[in-house]
Amino acid sequence: MGKTTLLVKPSNEKISVNKGSNLLDVLNQSNIYVEGACGGRGTCGKCKVKVLRGEVAPSESDLKKITKEEIELGYRLACRVEINDDLTIEVPGQAKEDSRKSDISSTVGLEAVTSFKKEYVELPQPVLKDQIGDFERIKRHVPEGENFTISLNALRKLPGVLRSSKFKITYTSYKNRIIDVEEGDTTGKLYGIAFDIGTTTIVGTLLDMVTGKALAVSSTGNPQRSYGADVISRITFSSEKDGLKILREKVLQGMNEICKELCKKAGISSQNIYHITTVGNTTMHHLFLGVDPTYLARSPYIPTFQEAQTLTAAEAGLEANPDACVYMVPNIAGYVGADTVGVVLDSHLEKSSQIKLAIDIGTNGEVLLGSKDKLLACSTAAGPAFEGAQIKYGMRAAEGAIERVKITTDCEIATIGNKPAVGICGSGLLDAVAQLVKAGIIDSRGRILPPDEIEGISPQLAARIIAGENGYDFILATEEESGINSPVVLTQKDVREVQLAKGAIYAGIKVMEKNLGITDDDLAEIILAGAFGSYIDKESAVTIGLIPAIDLEKIKSIGNAAGRGSQMALLSDTEKERANVISRQVEYIELSTNQDFQQEFMFAMNFPSPQ
Amino acid sequence: MGKTTLLVKPSNEKISVNKGSNLLDVLNQSNIYVEGACGGRGTCGKCKVKVLRGEVAPSESDLKKITKEEIELGYRLACRVEINDDLTIEVPGQAKEDSRKSDISSTVGLEAVTSFKKEYVELPQPVLKDQIGDFERIKRHVPEGENFTISLNALRKLPGVLRSSKFKITYTSYKNRIIDVEEGDTTGKLYGIAFDIGTTTIVGTLLDMVTGKALAVSSTGNPQRSYGADVISRITFSSEKDGLKILREKVLQGMNEICKELCKKAGISSQNIYHITTVGNTTMHHLFLGVDPTYLARSPYIPTFQEAQTLTAAEAGLEANPDACVYMVPNIAGYVGADTVGVVLDSHLEKSSQIKLAIDIGTNGEVLLGSKDKLLACSTAAGPAFEGAQIKYGMRAAEGAIERVKITTDCEIATIGNKPAVGICGSGLLDAVAQLVKAGIIDSRGRILPPDEIEGISPQLAARIIAGENGYDFILATEEESGINSPVVLTQKDVREVQLAKGAIYAGIKVMEKNLGITDDDLAEIILAGAFGSYIDKESAVTIGLIPAIDLEKIKSIGNAAGRGSQMALLSDTEKERANVISRQVEYIELSTNQDFQQEFMFAMNFPSPQ
Repeated sequence: MGKTTLLVKPSNEKISVNKGSNLLDVLNQSNIYVEGACGGRGTCGKCKVKVLRGEVAPSESDLKKITKEEIELGYRLACRVEINDDLTIEVPGQAKEDSRKSDISSTVGLEAVTSFKKEYVELPQPVLKDQIGDFERIKRHVPEGENFTISLNALRKLPGVLRSSKFKITYTSYKNRIIDVEEGDTTGKLYGIAFDIGTTTIVGTLLDMVTGKALAVSSTGNPQRSYGADVISRITFSSEKDGLKILREKVLQGMNEICKELCKKAGISSQNIYHITTVGNTTMHHLFLGVDPTYLARSPYIPTFQEAQTLTAAEAGLEANPDACVYMVPNIAGYVGADTVGVVLDSHLEKSSQIKLAIDIGTNGEVLLGSKDKLLACSTAAGPAFEGAQIKYGMRAAEGAIERVKITTDCEIATIGNKPAVGICGSGLLDAVAQLVKAGIIDSRGRILPPDEIEGISPQLAARIIAGENGYDFILATEEESGINSPVVLTQKDVREVQLAKGAIYAGIKVMEKNLGITDDDLAEIILAGAFGSYIDKESAVTIGLIPAIDLEKIKSIGNAAGRGSQMALLSDTEKERANVISRQVEYIELSTNQDFQQEFMFAMNFPSPQ
Repeated sequence: MGKTTLLVKPSNEKISVNKGSNLLDVLNQSNIYVEGACGGRGTCGKCKVKVLRGEVAPSESDLKKITKEEIELGYRLACRVEINDDLTIEVPGQAKEDSRKSDISSTVGLEAVTSFKKEYVELPQPVLKDQIGDFERIKRHVPEGENFTISLNALRKLPGVLRSSKFKITYTSYKNRIIDVEEGDTTGKLYGIAFDIGTTTIVGTLLDMVTGKALAVSSTGNPQRSYGADVISRITFSSEKDGLKILREKVLQGMNEICKELCKKAGISSQNIYHITTVGNTTMHHLFLGVDPTYLARSPYIPTFQEAQTLTAAEAGLEANPDACVYMVPNIAGYVGADTVGVVLDSHLEKSSQIKLAIDIGTNGEVLLGSKDKLLACSTAAGPAFEGAQIKYGMRAAEGAIERVKITTDCEIATIGNKPAVGICGSGLLDAVAQLVKAGIIDSRGRILPPDEIEGISPQLAARIIAGENGYDFILATEEESGINSPVVLTQKDVREVQLAKGAIYAGIKVMEKNLGITDDDLAEIILAGAFGSYIDKESAVTIGLIPAIDLEKIKSIGNAAGRGSQMALLSDTEKERANVISRQVEYIELSTNQDFQQEFMFAMNFPSPQ
């Protein structure tokens, strides 16, 4: 088996590979993230890379999933490429990760009240008349020491630390257990990381557990996403050989990258991270622990655990103090996870006297409805359309993504970073569809109309409507305007995907309203949680019927509420207890077998008539 | 760096080694135990091997530590041999390990009352109307389930086990934590191993934690012993590069061998071992945990921990159920360890209304004296003389070891297994010295007299007294009688070693008697613990002044009491609590700085005049 070289642009990484290796595998192993929704099956057409040098014949999947023009330009699906000779490729997605999620403003300001303690003690040095053991010396000196135990790691450090510091040390304890000992006074160095493990993006916030202040935020794409865009494809991949192991390693890799970056940003040692909390959907939590998620995807959709789990960083595989306590916020059900508990923690829905609706549109769409009297939750299989999966030019919110669309006599777009358009992200997609509905270019059934069916259409707009694979498509950015070698287009199929996604969410809301015996008029507030919720245009959301049409003033975007919930749990034992109560209090509604849901869904896929 | 081959006789093991390797290192790495008291420094002369094929020039250490005849026969110190070419050697010690310690009779019969539980449950299978999580399903079904937590390993097994068994499973819990789940009813499969980690020998007893019965006993030489015969040389080695790591790995290797053998003997799976207890001296306990023992060897002799430690088998590195609870019996002081606590557990000294003396002569000599009113303990630096270290022909109690000596008109010997004598073990050494003292061949100061100074000596005995390096030596087995190529001799230096050892123990007893204000007449009983204690001749022990001269009827050998203490702790929470109380109740007497001890020691080295 010979070796050959892969050169990756634009990062200029040179990778030595065994001949015969699969290109997507190599990129994954080298931590170069390439989009992938199907887990390497050649069916999603997302892992496109451009071959700059080297011969790679187009595969059958290429011919199906990539346009003829793209193939001529050298585009290939990475999952179908076998590397047999020196190869130079360009990875289009190798742009900057979504920096919007690293916004430090999305952190909580909470007083830290936890069971973690750091105490500085000056102990009398041992003499022949006082031969008590090192550990027992600490216990004797500490008022509450009677019941102390000590971790193996701390015990191993103890004799050296005591003697190099002349018996002046700081010990860290968690619930009567000493988990660290250090020379001198380090009582100020008590840190924790609150994680939000998203299907697509992992965010970590470093918190000072003495002051309660957030010190740094860092995020990265969930490295699992090369094995599937949504939880179902991840679950499917997990049952392949080593699949579960790989997915666990991948999420840990992402989390450990964040640990490292946070420590670097704040100038602290990872050994001083003593607490870690996680929120995430139930599948993410299963994969994080290496627990088989198979039965989540099969009726009756049973998770292996719902309750909060507690383990050490060493057990979890996280690179912090090995005895750091990892607390996983409890899950509500198989498809309503700890992230939803986090949203409730942050928004205090379970204490609200008014009826509120909260929607967290991430890769799934979890919906909460109710008040302190009764709080319902459901998961709408909205799918990751708003994150770009299944959308022809869909992409994450990265540089060059169309994020705003306005239809006047022509189509006006705004892109992230003001770069030439290379694709469209969730908020842009929502805008595009809403604006086209408003302009009468898309009808209420979701059909993109040909120019001759649209009354009074401008010639500029008419020119943008072109025949496509499944009816008509709409050009958002022409080849000249775009940063790729083709126009950026919204296809008829893309519109169908949006209809499915928004229909599922809206139908879920309707089923829950019916369960509570209320109507849209009873809603005191609609809360949009999640990064996507922060960036969408509320009017567009109402226009397409993603959410009930109530007064726009009553619609509130609260950003990454799940992540803040994770931070709250980190800083407070009381909030952890609240999380437990919430996870038991919230009533889960299973939609997959709900008759009402099927009916509502059919209606909800249509667009409301423009007002 | 080329390769070459080492062939080891009599086992005929073929080992491929890098040229330039050290022979002792290679043997250690290949788990071929060669005696070594100095940790490879070339000073103890114990790691003799015979070169059968290949050229190895004698080293300076060889010339000092091995006789000219032996060198001519091909004997070399393994620690000084660099392997540069194919080599065939014979390892003399590669005989059977001491099987006497595997005697199953030395086990306790105790009712098992612990916090471990195995419960068989038949759970209702999940349906869409009952979507509770797998773990929560167990909790719901179990009356005391409310407070259950579950280990990560058990959680990972759970979904598969539930479904393959149709939700009929057995869970194992320890103190409200589920640590295992298995298909079907396995409630009878609850096992534990009680270890006695001796400096020289490790013994493990497999116990049925349901019935309390001992199922099998297994022992092996402590693989650490190639790095030094006694605790001090081990501590010294532990401070060398990787020394601590190596010693920890070695003791684990021995313990895991025992685990494997016990499971094989009893026909059980190691996954059903849920509890492990250990006794051992304080140094062994430190090394078992990989905790630096350095400060035990330096004044003021401080252990890192004294109290009982609890950890999982996975943390400890033991090959049992990864969540098995490992409980280490508490230590009393730096040189009075958990093994001594084990002796008290077994002998109930701390509850005795009469004053008793207990001596555990292992590699160290720990002495206990007192009653329920006051119980003292000390460690006499007796050294491992009775285990063969520092004794020219000293060896462990293995085949061919002289175990009994009787002086009549000639010298009569008995060997283990009735094989030709290859050395002398502890009980034989004690007999030899006692008999020679009685016969007037050794005087009260410990000098082996030349024949012409001994009145009426037989010609046979006179012929056995020969000039040696430090005065006269005594031939126990002639070259013709022996199984080696030389006679087996008791040297003047050997007698000095016995004097030092027995003097230290006796002086320790005297100091403790003085502390309690008692004399030998107040002793209701003398208890000899440890394997050695079982095999020595009581009369010989009194003759040389190893123990006070009281009525032989009052002297009792109780065998491996420390090991039985470990078993008691395994089977009973009450005994664990007793161990904690004992470790705090026993008063430790430091002899190293005790004025009385120095004086008593000087007297005690002499032999009592023959009566």
